[in-house]
Amino acid sequence: MSTYKLHYFNGRGRAEVSRLIFAAAGQKFEDIRYESSQWPSHKSEMPLGQMPVLEFDGIKLPQSLSIARFLAKQFNLAGKDNLEQAKVDTVVDTMVDGMAKFGPIRREVDEVKRQADMQKFLVDELPKHMQNLEILANAYSNGGLFFVGNHLTWCDLFVYDMLENILHVDSSFLSRYSWLQRNRQEVEQQPNIAAYLKSRSQTSF
Amino acid sequence: MSTYKLHYFNGRGRAEVSRLIFAAAGQKFEDIRYESSQWPSHKSEMPLGQMPVLEFDGIKLPQSLSIARFLAKQFNLAGKDNLEQAKVDTVVDTMVDGMAKFGPIRREVDEVKRQADMQKFLVDELPKHMQNLEILANAYSNGGLFFVGNHLTWCDLFVYDMLENILHVDSSFLSRYSWLQRNRQEVEQQPNIAAYLKSRSQTSF
Ligand SMILES: N[C@@H](CCC(=O)N[C@@H](CS)C(=O)NCC(=O)O)C(=O)O
Ligand SMILES: N[C@@H](CCC(=O)N[C@@H](CS)C(=O)NCC(=O)O)C(=O)O
Repeated sequence: MSTYKLHYFNGRGRAEVSRLIFAAAGQKFEDIRYESSQWPSHKSEMPLGQMPVLEFDGIKLPQSLSIARFLAKQFNLAGKDNLEQAKVDTVVDTMVDGMAKFGPIRREVDEVKRQADMQKFLVDELPKHMQNLEILANAYSNGGLFFVGNHLTWCDLFVYDMLENILHVDSSFLSRYSWLQRNRQEVEQQPNIAAYLKSRSQTSF
Repeated sequence: MSTYKLHYFNGRGRAEVSRLIFAAAGQKFEDIRYESSQWPSHKSEMPLGQMPVLEFDGIKLPQSLSIARFLAKQFNLAGKDNLEQAKVDTVVDTMVDGMAKFGPIRREVDEVKRQADMQKFLVDELPKHMQNLEILANAYSNGGLFFVGNHLTWCDLFVYDMLENILHVDSSFLSRYSWLQRNRQEVEQQPNIAAYLKSRSQTSF
């Protein structure tokens, strides 16, 4: 039987989408978390000196999105054929586009600048990307509450996790996007996900 | 039989990797190119108001990397199983990381700043990413000249195309990365690719 170890910092960050995929699939894995203080002595163990890294049957794979897509395909959460998988990928890439400016803003150390830039992001940048996600949902969801093909795929989980970061800075923005809001509720109600969300450790990122 | 139309501007840009995939596969497609002046009247025809867009049997798919991955899977250029596909994806994502700062620098309008930033990119940023690509090649290539599994996949084509952009600003940097250089030659020597490269139109981006 295959074994899975996921190496990452002690936070959601770029690893959480993979943890959500494991949870949704009911697949056991070793969730290895490093504190920042431990990291320097482990950096050289990672292929590119960064995390997340998935260890699959002893092979170390870097790159968070590649890892997530690989796991999703292992557990039938990637779309049932090539076209569905492409649709799932377009949702992921569109979410990535939407987050491109968010990370650098959140890491801005000048607090006044950070707040101003974040406000600008929420007003000038975010709506377009949320609308794009709803356009894709409208094209792909067959009137259902999952993005693609009337069943849960990893793009639902990726969007769920990314939007959580935005909800931390503006807890109400999602009310303007009713499909996205209902999709979020649907994800949270999946029994395996609900159980995972209840039990996961609360971290600062 | 399936039909493929690729909508993009009249340049390599984000569409070229898909064109290279079509070429490698020997697959006919309609290569629809818009001049900037025509774009405003076509923008609303694209799902997210951007290109590239692939029209596959009438379905319009946005997102350049999702399109490329979809095409690669159609034509057996994505890796032969899930693990190979994951390795291919990690190469693509590592190349994307390497290009993250390149695009904004190239679009910088202040020429003095652009040249200074580009110099900094070439010296401080690029080497790490090129080394990362060689680390992955070393882990995946079985001593061969393709990144993954001893055969051509779309990550070879993606790296080929991205490095071309860098070669335009520094024609000699690749000589420091001998595996990457030999991989590039190997890609160029694929008969279908060689024929395509000879015949493709020369564009400014
Ligand atoms: N493109 C990579 C980026 C990985 C990355 O930036 N990892 C960060 C944490 S989120 C890291 O390992 N930082 C520590 C370091 O670089 O030493 C991915 O998506 O996995
Ligand atoms: N993440 C998207 C980005 C697409 C994108 O930025 N497209 C540009 C050209 S490279 C575009 O359509 N610009 C015209 C516009 O936005 O009106 C992808 O990779 O396809």
